[in-house]
Amino acid sequence: MLRPPPLLLLLTRCSAAARRFLSASRQGQGQGRAVGSVLKTPKGTRDHPPAQAALRERLLGTVVACFKRHGAAAIDTPVLELRETLMGKYGDNAKLIYELQDQGGELLALRYDLTVPFARYLAMNKITNIKRYHIAKVYRRDNPAMTRGRYREFYQCDFDIAGQFDPMIPDAECLKIVHEILSDLQLGDFLIKVNDRRILDGMFAVCGVPDSKFRTICSSVDKLDKVPWEEVKNEMVGEKGLSPEAADRIGEYVQLHGGLDLIEQLLQDPKLSQNKLAKEGLGDMKLLFEYLTLFGITGKISFDLSLARGLDYYTGVIYEAVLLQQQNDHVEDPVSIGSVAGGGRYDGLVGMFDPKGRKVPCVGVSIGIERIFSILEQRVEASEEKIRTTETQVLVASAQKKLLEERLKLISELWDAGIKAEILYKKNPKLLNQLQYCEETGIPLVAIVGEQELKDGVVKLRDVATREEVNIRRENLIEEIRMRTSQL
Amino acid sequence: MLRPPPLLLLLTRCSAAARRFLSASRQGQGQGRAVGSVLKTPKGTRDHPPAQAALRERLLGTVVACFKRHGAAAIDTPVLELRETLMGKYGDNAKLIYELQDQGGELLALRYDLTVPFARYLAMNKITNIKRYHIAKVYRRDNPAMTRGRYREFYQCDFDIAGQFDPMIPDAECLKIVHEILSDLQLGDFLIKVNDRRILDGMFAVCGVPDSKFRTICSSVDKLDKVPWEEVKNEMVGEKGLSPEAADRIGEYVQLHGGLDLIEQLLQDPKLSQNKLAKEGLGDMKLLFEYLTLFGITGKISFDLSLARGLDYYTGVIYEAVLLQQQNDHVEDPVSIGSVAGGGRYDGLVGMFDPKGRKVPCVGVSIGIERIFSILEQRVEASEEKIRTTETQVLVASAQKKLLEERLKLISELWDAGIKAEILYKKNPKLLNQLQYCEETGIPLVAIVGEQELKDGVVKLRDVATREEVNIRRENLIEEIRMRTSQL
Repeated sequence: MLRPPPLLLLLTRCSAAARRFLSASRQGQGQGRAVGSVLKTPKGTRDHPPAQAALRERLLGTVVACFKRHGAAAIDTPVLELRETLMGKYGDNAKLIYELQDQGGELLALRYDLTVPFARYLAMNKITNIKRYHIAKVYRRDNPAMTRGRYREFYQCDFDIAGQFDPMIPDAECLKIVHEILSDLQLGDFLIKVNDRRILDGMFAVCGVPDSKFRTICSSVDKLDKVPWEEVKNEMVGEKGLSPEAADRIGEYVQLHGGLDLIEQLLQDPKLSQNKLAKEGLGDMKLLFEYLTLFGITGKISFDLSLARGLDYYTGVIYEAVLLQQQNDHVEDPVSIGSVAGGGRYDGLVGMFDPKGRKVPCVGVSIGIERIFSILEQRVEASEEKIRTTETQVLVASAQKKLLEERLKLISELWDAGIKAEILYKKNPKLLNQLQYCEETGIPLVAIVGEQELKDGVVKLRDVATREEVNIRRENLIEEIRMRTSQL
Repeated sequence: MLRPPPLLLLLTRCSAAARRFLSASRQGQGQGRAVGSVLKTPKGTRDHPPAQAALRERLLGTVVACFKRHGAAAIDTPVLELRETLMGKYGDNAKLIYELQDQGGELLALRYDLTVPFARYLAMNKITNIKRYHIAKVYRRDNPAMTRGRYREFYQCDFDIAGQFDPMIPDAECLKIVHEILSDLQLGDFLIKVNDRRILDGMFAVCGVPDSKFRTICSSVDKLDKVPWEEVKNEMVGEKGLSPEAADRIGEYVQLHGGLDLIEQLLQDPKLSQNKLAKEGLGDMKLLFEYLTLFGITGKISFDLSLARGLDYYTGVIYEAVLLQQQNDHVEDPVSIGSVAGGGRYDGLVGMFDPKGRKVPCVGVSIGIERIFSILEQRVEASEEKIRTTETQVLVASAQKKLLEERLKLISELWDAGIKAEILYKKNPKLLNQLQYCEETGIPLVAIVGEQELKDGVVKLRDVATREEVNIRRENLIEEIRMRTSQL
């Protein structure tokens, strides 16, 4: 297996320092030029100290490896966009967009997601065909719930395939990617729910929902993963003016979930099979499941008529991955503990930017990296071991005083040979302090220079874990360090 | 050598696509919901298409490898900071800070650099000892000069050592890092100029500059790399009210540059040697050069009394690296073609944030990644070859129709084994189109399934460059692909 080692193997060691991960912003009264100022990061944002940054680097490494395995190229777009680029794309959520002060010149805003800038990029450069990933921060003036991984500044990890292709092949690959990433991360059991906006719209039509109410009823359905049907029905009937009969018909459909068998059943459904949109959607869903069967991943995929997704711009297949947890000692089905990935097909968004309205069909997936990160953080917190924040292979140390020059000469040789090496920034550090530094930071080797070693043309190489020491001829030192740290 | 291969070896192949690198923002009149809107990125910002993103990933890879080789941990801080955190840190440049609109809640701004947020982070978390790097975007409402790598949104690459240590050891390491990175990047000849704020201040004092004019005269000296001495003198005397005699005395010092010999000479200088600050600075400069001699890098280091650096917060050693170019057919010294790294010691900045004013001495270096990137971009533009934007090892192709299912089965096996693989998203793609896709995107291998191969339990593996084809038993395919692409 060339695949990267499962992330959790890398996470089996965590530290007290790591347990300070979720450290609340400490406030203080400033002095000097900062007198009276509040010492904190803005609401809903946080610093990433080294242990967190290292954990995030590994997590993103797993995700990027998967995106690259599927042939995606990286792109980057500015954090700043023209305000007008973002306007009219997010419905009610537009109020969550951070706007910049008018300081003369263009009116700017911070990007709300990576999808709208991607569509702007495609239209601006007349690109009709690309497979790209983009991992970057986005900004939302939302109510933060930081312990659950909800921030005002947070990373999105997006993979999208743009272009006119044969049906459901790129869509199936997106689901394969979600399956691979959640498997690689070893987060526990998961389920990927799949539906199609055309099936939803067809269903609304045959249930007697007026066309004008499709979107708003769809957003009621979207709440079904959080509130019971009765509440959703009350919203539909009470707030949104749907007839109770139509709501009840919807209620029957949205409790359905299954696989190919359910698709076949609905293709025979006397009402749905008469609706053009629903029929198209069901036909594509069948094709999708055939491809997912070839990928061998249908065991974790559920065609679920209650899945609606919040965003307006989806036009076809939609999906959402949730982590599952077995209820304590019950025999019931495992329950969802939160969404960790989502996406779908959006064939109209690029056309909104194109001067001639030319469409570029797109399908994509966004990995909910902040939620996954907060789950990993909690595991790290709960564990007791140490996570390394540096990759240093060897500390260059001295056993006696007046050897700073010799340490500097040796470490310079090591750096030039590509060895990751450190020294303590003291003229005459105590050997004990140098060894302690290795234990604290996880440096596996110490190269010790001393009067006798210099005379003999050797360096004493100490294994920090076993405390074994052996003299290595100076000319063999680099090779020996490489050999000993090659599996790290 | 375990060091990464020199970047330019990776850059020897570039493409027409790559030459579209500096593509200007194309404007267009929007239709649909975006009617009348301008299709562009904000002034001074740009998208990074795949070829650019790939080049940047390699460049940053070289820089990060060096930072990690020196034992630095990564940290991250928000793009947003409280306005008051940034106020009073940048002097006149404060007008270049992007401020967010007051949308209720805290008053926010976009970070201007990574150093002030780093100092805020240290004070907030009471950290007195850390070696960290941080690579991230910063924002300045400056006049962009995009072809020379000057943007309003741009990356900074910072490495800093915070803590109370014995003199000049971390300072010397920062210079070693600049030397390593500029050597690894093979950008051509370079020179690292070094000076010390204490030497400058001592020099101003002995030349008769009043204390109150130190900073403003310092910023005049800072212009010496761009304008001739006569102009700088005019500014000092005409605009800033310095006496012509004092200016002339400064003029004599600032033309001095050299190595240990110059340091020794100035330590004997009848005026400078009487000044406490200058003496301290010169003593440390001597120590620094001794350490740099042990590192073997004094050949590219110049103690230069004209180096002043713009920022207020430096308190000790300062440095700046410039690329050199031999003047056409002259025998003169090579001339500077621009600064690509800079930094210095700032022992007071953290104390500005600490409630009790506690100081944390810091020294650091910032790699001018945008300028380096624009130099590399121009080289890519000038060359004719192709830069790969993906890492795909193999395209799974079919020679006949009706083999989509077989392609999906095979590619799924490859993905699960960690092989980077793609297929064309067509039911029945032509073999020629599949081979062309490989040539265009640089995919080195094609795994071809056909009726006969399926019967024989083999896959035809084609080398795109040599066009050689060989049948590989299906169970050996993964190993064969790994073997053939292991050096890529």
